[in-house]
Amino acid sequence: MTPVITIAGAQMGATQKNDTRESVAQRMQHLIEQAAKRGAQLIVFPELCLTPFFPRWYYETLEEADQWFEDQWPPRGLENALQKAKDLNIMVQISYAEKTLDNHRYNTASLISSAGEHLMKYRKIHLPGHADYIPERPLQHLEKRYFEVGNLGFPVERFYLENVGEFNLGMLLCNDRRWPEAWRVLGLQEVDIVLIGYNTPVANLDVTHHQPPHLKVMQSNLSVQAGCYQNNCFGVSVAKAGVEDGHAMFGSSIIVNPFGEIIARSSTWHDELIIADCDLSLCQVNRASTFNFEAHRRPEHYQRIVEQTGSIRPKKVVQA
Amino acid sequence: MTPVITIAGAQMGATQKNDTRESVAQRMQHLIEQAAKRGAQLIVFPELCLTPFFPRWYYETLEEADQWFEDQWPPRGLENALQKAKDLNIMVQISYAEKTLDNHRYNTASLISSAGEHLMKYRKIHLPGHADYIPERPLQHLEKRYFEVGNLGFPVERFYLENVGEFNLGMLLCNDRRWPEAWRVLGLQEVDIVLIGYNTPVANLDVTHHQPPHLKVMQSNLSVQAGCYQNNCFGVSVAKAGVEDGHAMFGSSIIVNPFGEIIARSSTWHDELIIADCDLSLCQVNRASTFNFEAHRRPEHYQRIVEQTGSIRPKKVVQA
Repeated sequence: MTPVITIAGAQMGATQKNDTRESVAQRMQHLIEQAAKRGAQLIVFPELCLTPFFPRWYYETLEEADQWFEDQWPPRGLENALQKAKDLNIMVQISYAEKTLDNHRYNTASLISSAGEHLMKYRKIHLPGHADYIPERPLQHLEKRYFEVGNLGFPVERFYLENVGEFNLGMLLCNDRRWPEAWRVLGLQEVDIVLIGYNTPVANLDVTHHQPPHLKVMQSNLSVQAGCYQNNCFGVSVAKAGVEDGHAMFGSSIIVNPFGEIIARSSTWHDELIIADCDLSLCQVNRASTFNFEAHRRPEHYQRIVEQTGSIRPKKVVQA
Repeated sequence: MTPVITIAGAQMGATQKNDTRESVAQRMQHLIEQAAKRGAQLIVFPELCLTPFFPRWYYETLEEADQWFEDQWPPRGLENALQKAKDLNIMVQISYAEKTLDNHRYNTASLISSAGEHLMKYRKIHLPGHADYIPERPLQHLEKRYFEVGNLGFPVERFYLENVGEFNLGMLLCNDRRWPEAWRVLGLQEVDIVLIGYNTPVANLDVTHHQPPHLKVMQSNLSVQAGCYQNNCFGVSVAKAGVEDGHAMFGSSIIVNPFGEIIARSSTWHDELIIADCDLSLCQVNRASTFNFEAHRRPEHYQRIVEQTGSIRPKKVVQA
């Protein structure tokens, strides 16, 4: 058996405030059909793929923001698209704002089997931005207002797929991809494939005067490439792109191999499939050498990573 | 006061088995003089800058390898070069095989003040390679034979330099640069500048059939760029380059800014200075936003990083 899985990243263009759920679901269904035609066994959608990136808008109460949350499974309006995926025998990852029965709100990704079953869930842990309205910001980023920190850790599950074999899969969402701790917790579970949805603006919201916009794509790619290389895994990093409500998101969806190389990349800001054959035997190459964790890691020297949250600079100053 | 420090990376070409210490010290002194002429306040030499990269050679007893170790401070033959650095008011980092009075052996870096004082020491923690002779390897890599794991942790010290101000400095050696844990432990001490010496072969020793040689430079740069970006610091990554004893090392010394950009790069395999003005105010940009650790890190979800060494894959297999 060849351990190759064909994965599609389904970048999506902008979704506007007044777009209907029906229109979004139709776009997703079309992408699912295209991915299946091209032989994909798994299709990955962006973060918050069903709605605009609503955390840029301020609502005084959480209840006002509930219009953007899903409180049922599957999310409303997705029945036909998911039925089509099942008919075409393709696994699907979708991401959405989740409201639980007991009123908790998370930024969530769900993986669905080729038989249409809910397989695993991830709730975003590294929420960027802020909780309160900040008048001097050109754009709000209120993820810390609308979502709680994920309570599921960074799960990795082992799956079996016919014609592929067994593989380990984990998920991250958007800002998580910049945090090496998140990647390492996945790597320590021997993850082979990491799925990542994101929405990232072209502009630097806090620091436009310091960092030119072209660095945003470089830094996004750098984070995913380093995460894959240092953890012996494939990364499928899929954007919501284009201009929503006047705010541009940079797109640039990529698939990265375990050597850190970009092997597929989007080139528009619209709905666009990227696709790659991911040979899972490549995950074993550095796992047996450079990044053989058992042979080379030294956790006794890593204690600060869990013992402190913020950075603490040395107190004493020495003349150099 | 402008918080800019001018740093030189002093890449060195090959040092052969029969080269005298005097000849090596003269090359170093020349690089120190050139760096001072170009306004550098700190010069960084490669890992094991006084000798060939001797861990590629197998010695049956540790005592036979002692010819490559330093058991005095400063290392023998360096007096003139270090006096010149003091005269020119330039800080120096050198790296060498250290043998202590009580017979411990480490792969060590030392930082020397502009007044010629020993300021701080780092002993390499992530030793690559293996401890025993492996006949089927095209090239031995016996760091785990000749060195103990460093016992000083990843120290960061706060220094004051006239015309620069205060800054936090840490050190890594070679393979350490590939480990995000090492960078993060430095970042959690608010490091501004990370000095890295390395010796890295062009060939992939274990995995040539899987990974083409051009990936080696990319992966080295990727690790340093990600480490700097994700930890809000400058990186000065300096190679021993060229062909030693028939074995080519890839060079490609770089200086990286806190946005992850390469701002200086060597272009030969010989003794070669790279130099950059490092504006330390850039370290504050993402430290106050994207990588404000206090606001965004979630150590409660990072426990695996210190609780396990090797990777452990999920036991249960689920049909996908």
